[in-house]
Amino acid sequence: MTPAQTRLIDALRPLLDAKAIITDRDAIAPWETDWRRRFHGHAPAILAPATRDDVAAILATATAHGVPLVPQGGNSSMVGGATPPADGSALILSLRRMNRIRHIDAAAGLAVAEAGVILADLHDAALAKGRRFPLTLGARGNATIGGLVSTNAGGTQVLRFGTMRGLVAGVEAVLPDGTIHDGLSALKKDNRGYDLDQLLIGAEGTLGVVTAATLHLVPAIAQAATAWVGVASPADGLALLRRLQAATDAIESFEIMPAETLAAAVAHVPGARPPLAGHHAWHILIEATAADARGEPPSHLLETLLARALEANVIADAVIAASEAQAQGFWRLRDSLSDAERALGPATQHDLSVPVDAMPRFMIEAAAACDARFPGTHASGFGHLGDGNIHFHVRSAPGTDRDRFYAEQAPAITRFVHDLVVAWGGSISAEHGIGQMKRDELARLSPARVATLAAIKRAVDPAGLLNPGKLVALAPDPKAP
Amino acid sequence: MTPAQTRLIDALRPLLDAKAIITDRDAIAPWETDWRRRFHGHAPAILAPATRDDVAAILATATAHGVPLVPQGGNSSMVGGATPPADGSALILSLRRMNRIRHIDAAAGLAVAEAGVILADLHDAALAKGRRFPLTLGARGNATIGGLVSTNAGGTQVLRFGTMRGLVAGVEAVLPDGTIHDGLSALKKDNRGYDLDQLLIGAEGTLGVVTAATLHLVPAIAQAATAWVGVASPADGLALLRRLQAATDAIESFEIMPAETLAAAVAHVPGARPPLAGHHAWHILIEATAADARGEPPSHLLETLLARALEANVIADAVIAASEAQAQGFWRLRDSLSDAERALGPATQHDLSVPVDAMPRFMIEAAAACDARFPGTHASGFGHLGDGNIHFHVRSAPGTDRDRFYAEQAPAITRFVHDLVVAWGGSISAEHGIGQMKRDELARLSPARVATLAAIKRAVDPAGLLNPGKLVALAPDPKAP
Repeated sequence: MTPAQTRLIDALRPLLDAKAIITDRDAIAPWETDWRRRFHGHAPAILAPATRDDVAAILATATAHGVPLVPQGGNSSMVGGATPPADGSALILSLRRMNRIRHIDAAAGLAVAEAGVILADLHDAALAKGRRFPLTLGARGNATIGGLVSTNAGGTQVLRFGTMRGLVAGVEAVLPDGTIHDGLSALKKDNRGYDLDQLLIGAEGTLGVVTAATLHLVPAIAQAATAWVGVASPADGLALLRRLQAATDAIESFEIMPAETLAAAVAHVPGARPPLAGHHAWHILIEATAADARGEPPSHLLETLLARALEANVIADAVIAASEAQAQGFWRLRDSLSDAERALGPATQHDLSVPVDAMPRFMIEAAAACDARFPGTHASGFGHLGDGNIHFHVRSAPGTDRDRFYAEQAPAITRFVHDLVVAWGGSISAEHGIGQMKRDELARLSPARVATLAAIKRAVDPAGLLNPGKLVALAPDPKAP
Repeated sequence: MTPAQTRLIDALRPLLDAKAIITDRDAIAPWETDWRRRFHGHAPAILAPATRDDVAAILATATAHGVPLVPQGGNSSMVGGATPPADGSALILSLRRMNRIRHIDAAAGLAVAEAGVILADLHDAALAKGRRFPLTLGARGNATIGGLVSTNAGGTQVLRFGTMRGLVAGVEAVLPDGTIHDGLSALKKDNRGYDLDQLLIGAEGTLGVVTAATLHLVPAIAQAATAWVGVASPADGLALLRRLQAATDAIESFEIMPAETLAAAVAHVPGARPPLAGHHAWHILIEATAADARGEPPSHLLETLLARALEANVIADAVIAASEAQAQGFWRLRDSLSDAERALGPATQHDLSVPVDAMPRFMIEAAAACDARFPGTHASGFGHLGDGNIHFHVRSAPGTDRDRFYAEQAPAITRFVHDLVVAWGGSISAEHGIGQMKRDELARLSPARVATLAAIKRAVDPAGLLNPGKLVALAPDPKAP
């Protein structure tokens, strides 16, 4: 522990309860490495406040002592965004004890949840009141509201309900000097200058510490239907989506994958069979839901619309899950795509987006460009076609040594894919954020943008104490102890 | 013209076309005063770029010469937000020549409009493609897209479609140093750090100059219905809205007014009659629309839902407009409320919001508090109940001298109303922004917030050259010429 850290902890002890300062190595160790075990850091202590005012006291005192802090929720970042630096210079600020759902107003469709509330717990609490918090993702058993807000999380229901940004009605946060930003009253209209809520959403804890959020709830699902569709190309897939969206707003998920990726999933999942009989170059999983139990069943709706698309030669074949078990089987295939691909050998994985209308062409042309540039490798993408967001994987040439691939070829592939994304007007991080993993690539590709981000960072956190090393690199503060 | 201004214009002449530099006094004069004629400024010249690159050249050159600029669109600000300072220190940067709709993609529901496009023209262009840009307001014949984005404009359709922030998919802007922020590709998912689009929306031209925006379009209206409802209280009004919203998402407008304000409107509009026969303490105007011509008519829907609300004693009486002419008559009453009230005598007017659920109590209790504090005056509010946003007017005591009221009593009333709004967790500017009119009140009421806003302003516009004096006051830049 540095002398400044010791002084900080001494100063905090009289201000906080006994559970709020953790220095036991065994208790700290699990939180020093990210959940994919790619980034390893070291923190001499974890600070675990129980209230917003605790957080304010911690930030004001840490600023006074010049001690950096790494805010952390469920530690499920995909980009090392919540892992402390390796040199032990920062303490972890864990929000997990702040896990109260302060309020649910079912009639108004609003919930106020503290930063440490786990996503799955919010799902359950909303459902108990006949409502639904629609954002969901694989890490829902670990990811916390504070982290989801701070990373503007995405997931599988973005098509209909948007990312976290669209679901946040207000943010409560503590700024680096300990002042509190209270946006929880969730005004529908408020034009008092720059929107600080919006600035904090997706800021990855580098400007302030989110302590709670007011969140929009939607009606609970009363009816759902799941379909599997075969199409000749991503372009036909997008044409189908546009037809569906013109007729209904019931479409929640629209996930595309190439035949070979599906085949890998069928081989990977015990007992799985291809949902459609014939060969189709591309496959699409569709989920439609309705909040009204008495309205037209989404299965009828999908049946009608898919029959019309079949007649119009937009799609080649389709089946609607006849049972809940069959629907779950479809989703099991979708959810196993990443694991199934991984079993095929080492690959670079890219969470990228381009404008939705450009995605069908990107999926074909970017894959071809990669294959040509790196002979023997194989590129392909699958995922959220309707969001313009796919997971683009470049698999190593058969027989390539794993370690050599990751050490030598992967960085060049990553730069090549990123350059393609920029040329297509896209984003090198669609939903995972920048963290430490993509920080230098962002600076390489968007120097003007990063200069503006850095100026804002310096303005709000002049000493660079919040989540150091993530998102934007700052020159060390000359006044820091 | 200051020497620096002269040098700037000399430097710009070879870079811009002949129409881009306006120094003719008669051509400048109309743009030096706001449209309500409350704020008077002076600008030695107007710069009128034709392209984004013109804007970039102007900003880079103005920064080099230290000349402040006031961005201006339709000059329809309600808070003096586009009026130059009186001392002639700034030039007007007019975006009106940039009036191209670059692109409309009806299938994707997106339009790319330049900053100078007039709102009514965008409405027409969208309709010609079978689509609709839903935001609308009284100044639609003057207000421009750049100004609407920069002020996060509201209007009468916010209940269903949100403010401008919810309708902007991407922003193109020029930052003070002339660098271009291009967010037009409108990625649905993009997590590359702080959201600069969101920072520019509602920034009132103090951080950058918006040159174009990608905007969401919605399906055109196929069917509409208008209803007039009598209720005993704002609380019953909100209960009605919650019932309607639980049953349908067709409700676009939900406007409340007290009986006395309606009576003033009936007296003010030639040939108008009260929509309902009996006396009701509060009146509500409801508009419901449907995009599907074949679905259930909104009039049937409203009939069913209002009949149920009548049975449940939530409302006292209701009528659905039987013809387009009758519907227009209802709206004419709503639209004349401000004029009708003005005819009753001098009053202070406040564009304020509180949390939606608190608004019914606020309308009663804040009015009572004002009446008690300023004997003889009369306070009441009307407007967008479903958005938690009303126009709150405090009318002078009968017989009060107009000039004396505005000079002596109005400032105290304004401060009192603002203090009430803060105590209720609300906003002193729901939709009009801060501009120069509310700048000092914002600083008085929210010093911590304004300190953060000022830090961001200094970070992005260190010389304070963009829209000086609006939103946040900055200390003069010591390096400025």
